[in-house]
Amino acid sequence: MANRLRIHSIRATCASSSGHPTSCCSVAEIMAVLFFHTMRYKQGDPEHPDNDRFVLSKRLSFVDVATGSLGQGLGAACGMAYTGKYFDKASYRVFCLMGDGESSEGSVWEALAFASHYNLDNLVAIFDVNRLGQSGTAPLEHCTAVYEKRCQAFGWNTYVVDGHDVEALCQAFWKAAQVKNKPTVLIAKTFKGRGIPKVEDAENWHGKPMPKDRADGIVKLIENQIQTNRNLTPKSPIEDSPRISISNSKMTSLPAYKLGDMIATREAYGLALAKLGQSNQRVIVLDGDTKNSTFSEVFKKEHPERFIECFIAEQNMVSVALGCATRGRTIAFVSTFAAFLTRAFDQIRMGAISQTNINFVGSHCGVSVGEDGPSQMALEDLAMFRSIPNCTIFYPSDAVSTEHAVYLAANTKGMCFIRTTRPKTAVIYTAEENFVIGQAKVIRQSSVDKVTVIGAGVTLHEALVAAEELSQQGIFIRVIDLFTIKPLDAATIIRSAKATGGQIITVEDHYREGGIGEAVCAAISREPDILVSQLAVTEVPRSGKPSELLDMFGISARHIIAAVKDTVMN
Amino acid sequence: MANRLRIHSIRATCASSSGHPTSCCSVAEIMAVLFFHTMRYKQGDPEHPDNDRFVLSKRLSFVDVATGSLGQGLGAACGMAYTGKYFDKASYRVFCLMGDGESSEGSVWEALAFASHYNLDNLVAIFDVNRLGQSGTAPLEHCTAVYEKRCQAFGWNTYVVDGHDVEALCQAFWKAAQVKNKPTVLIAKTFKGRGIPKVEDAENWHGKPMPKDRADGIVKLIENQIQTNRNLTPKSPIEDSPRISISNSKMTSLPAYKLGDMIATREAYGLALAKLGQSNQRVIVLDGDTKNSTFSEVFKKEHPERFIECFIAEQNMVSVALGCATRGRTIAFVSTFAAFLTRAFDQIRMGAISQTNINFVGSHCGVSVGEDGPSQMALEDLAMFRSIPNCTIFYPSDAVSTEHAVYLAANTKGMCFIRTTRPKTAVIYTAEENFVIGQAKVIRQSSVDKVTVIGAGVTLHEALVAAEELSQQGIFIRVIDLFTIKPLDAATIIRSAKATGGQIITVEDHYREGGIGEAVCAAISREPDILVSQLAVTEVPRSGKPSELLDMFGISARHIIAAVKDTVMN
Repeated sequence: MANRLRIHSIRATCASSSGHPTSCCSVAEIMAVLFFHTMRYKQGDPEHPDNDRFVLSKRLSFVDVATGSLGQGLGAACGMAYTGKYFDKASYRVFCLMGDGESSEGSVWEALAFASHYNLDNLVAIFDVNRLGQSGTAPLEHCTAVYEKRCQAFGWNTYVVDGHDVEALCQAFWKAAQVKNKPTVLIAKTFKGRGIPKVEDAENWHGKPMPKDRADGIVKLIENQIQTNRNLTPKSPIEDSPRISISNSKMTSLPAYKLGDMIATREAYGLALAKLGQSNQRVIVLDGDTKNSTFSEVFKKEHPERFIECFIAEQNMVSVALGCATRGRTIAFVSTFAAFLTRAFDQIRMGAISQTNINFVGSHCGVSVGEDGPSQMALEDLAMFRSIPNCTIFYPSDAVSTEHAVYLAANTKGMCFIRTTRPKTAVIYTAEENFVIGQAKVIRQSSVDKVTVIGAGVTLHEALVAAEELSQQGIFIRVIDLFTIKPLDAATIIRSAKATGGQIITVEDHYREGGIGEAVCAAISREPDILVSQLAVTEVPRSGKPSELLDMFGISARHIIAAVKDTVMN
Repeated sequence: MANRLRIHSIRATCASSSGHPTSCCSVAEIMAVLFFHTMRYKQGDPEHPDNDRFVLSKRLSFVDVATGSLGQGLGAACGMAYTGKYFDKASYRVFCLMGDGESSEGSVWEALAFASHYNLDNLVAIFDVNRLGQSGTAPLEHCTAVYEKRCQAFGWNTYVVDGHDVEALCQAFWKAAQVKNKPTVLIAKTFKGRGIPKVEDAENWHGKPMPKDRADGIVKLIENQIQTNRNLTPKSPIEDSPRISISNSKMTSLPAYKLGDMIATREAYGLALAKLGQSNQRVIVLDGDTKNSTFSEVFKKEHPERFIECFIAEQNMVSVALGCATRGRTIAFVSTFAAFLTRAFDQIRMGAISQTNINFVGSHCGVSVGEDGPSQMALEDLAMFRSIPNCTIFYPSDAVSTEHAVYLAANTKGMCFIRTTRPKTAVIYTAEENFVIGQAKVIRQSSVDKVTVIGAGVTLHEALVAAEELSQQGIFIRVIDLFTIKPLDAATIIRSAKATGGQIITVEDHYREGGIGEAVCAAISREPDILVSQLAVTEVPRSGKPSELLDMFGISARHIIAAVKDTVMN
């Protein structure tokens, strides 16, 4: 079977003039043993919930998550194994095949630490130690003892095996299944291009198909190694995972806030999440040692068995969430400071390719974080999430709309991002207000408005202060709360602008690039008579009181008033 | 001295109502020993090149790099130590103090692997194992033996010490200085809030100043522990680093390309870099096992001693580069696939706070990558780098302009990003052409142009094809090569648009959000009579031939022609 896989990889990559036949040849026996001896699954139903899972972290996946940016597969496998062991309490097992070069990625070590911390004995990792990377040798070459020492130090059960010895592989996988409370790793010594003369273990063959004139000869040679044509079929899975649904999560009651209540949207998030968790048992929450700041601890207190503490390892946290959400097994919310989600941009980017369904909640956005300083302030998170295809971005401005955002995110396919704010802000919506993705709210208007001001979060409240003060001077402005930044309610923006002399001012606690202002500029770019002025943070900020910083960086009520007057005068 | 530091931290955080006095108290002895016994530096000249370096990865830095997003300090310290050992060949040593919670970050393990691989015996790391994180206990609590086993497996010399025992700390730091070819780590068992009754080793005190009414009593208690008022002064540094200059790197000759030559900008980058390396000995290059694809291997072949192979660990690669560039010791270029720079967004974000001077080069942008598929295609890199304050973004469209971009990046303060392309494109500029940051080139124009088309990289060449075909149909368009995306040449864009009926079409091999189109929309947002149409990638792409994908995702010459006709008709 291994040799048949070799032939397929050589033929397919020759046909497409692209691909990695030498890497395929190093793992041929591992794949053959896994798929035709060790793993249990229904061949005709690859997404069956009871199938064993397989993640090919080295390259493309079996079915669940896209790979190809290295070092992300094991974290996803951890999420699948955590879900299997603690949420599904089912028999399926999870296998993850990694390259040796990819073990340089720190995210692999985050995942190794996570798996042993949570005793994921239903998880088996395999390092394909074939010695060669893309552009040279991998740092540890064939030193399998170093891999073993490192994995043991990270709490794993280890077997060093000859990765081309089918019998040894079968035995090691069998032994792995007997081990309790520890994940197992197979450190498989292999040779890149195994079975191809003059290519095996040679440099400069990474990601290169065989020359077309050599392919037939090589295939013939490998065919001669095939010992049997017996058809192998996998074992059937044990069908013991619970039947569950992740659709129709409902809120059990209306928001419990009154107009004017002072509460931070980050706190409203925690409260909403705990409420959501009452209606659907598959709502889970992950956090990275910030639960007391993001307020995900409110959920943890009510539903401790559905909270995963991922410690300070944001990349792995995102990958674990991706894994937990595969095959529709959970509704996952991931929270940390929005600034620290930048740590996982590559994982988020790959999540879009996986068509994952997870929800991110980033707290502590913008300069309104205050004293903790710029390292803690997210000022590029909107730019990041806006660049993700099909990502829905909520930026609620009060507790009521935050609760709606949590409910909508749980019920929306694809990735969602909710941006929450550190300081307390006033509740501006009644409990009965309805929110729809892609629909902005015009929250202040008159028939004589001169400018449309678009704010979000703290800056919406600054806009309301500005509107009040301006109205006392006889200048009236329209104020819009976008609610979702993506999709953007272009129709309401354009309609409002046209009603206010074509003038728009955007004001955001974010850098100018890629944020709300540019989204609005793009939305009106085919409208001839609409002009946009942007108020945004334009330099690296500093530490200070939130109100001082809003003013220092040009996004306070005072600056909105000045911008409105400037617009009205000219 | 340690107790005096405790008092300062309590007083300062009380005064500002913000800060981390309990974390300061756990490291008080470590800091006292380092700064008043072990380290050599000039007190009055913290940036002196011969001073020992100190990176406080747990929080803020001594002088060189901003921290505060955890797990980044050790990589920067690696860059300083690598520079000290291999480039400066000097006596200064590097110390990096980390928290225990932060050891969950994979980037820490990337750095640990890097330091032992390159035998950085001038580097000392300290883990402050105080057991408590922000929101609960750290995963390994006080198990110093596990830290030791992990660090040893990663190739480090280790000492487990009582972090409050001054004598033991002095000895361990002294022993570390005697070890050859291995970096040393001190695993220091400490107590958070050490010395403060009822706060020491207690939960829920992270990042909280002492209550104002208790502060005086606590300070009094600690004052009573002070054994001497003798003033301690540090040892002077050994002044043996070479005098160098990183300004005025020149190219030794004009670009060697002829109009019409077919060469990929990624290859032109490698060739330009090798040439730049001839004129300045402080030009260094880092790559993450992609040197044969980014073409940084051309530099490596000419200047092997100035090339750092960082293996597949992009976060650490960026941190190492940051460290190498501190105190103006090197001109660092970091290259990998542009898509994989997303892995290091948090490090890049923090680099802006550090005011670092490093240069990024991302190859394989956009769908023109072709067969390797979406995981390898950068479609959000412009959005990412545009959100970085003061980052200069080059997007050269041929080999000549690529060479100028490399030269200009080397001589530009702050971060730079150069976006290069996989397929070959024609040389469109003569060797004598001059390029200036922030100045676009109008490369095709007539007096009867109907539309301004703005392309970059492959799409500029598509625009030229479209222009040619349209001209045969009697429709003339103006074509602009922006050269730098940030700063953007708004004046040329607006002038061209006004000369072409106010019509602009942007076309880019990047997602719509945060890219060239939105940058242009923002630049003209106060211009009443300019309209912009955006052609950009709007969904997750797939694998295919580059030309097929350009067409499938709407950014080929055919789509430009259709957009121009649509504009001209309406």
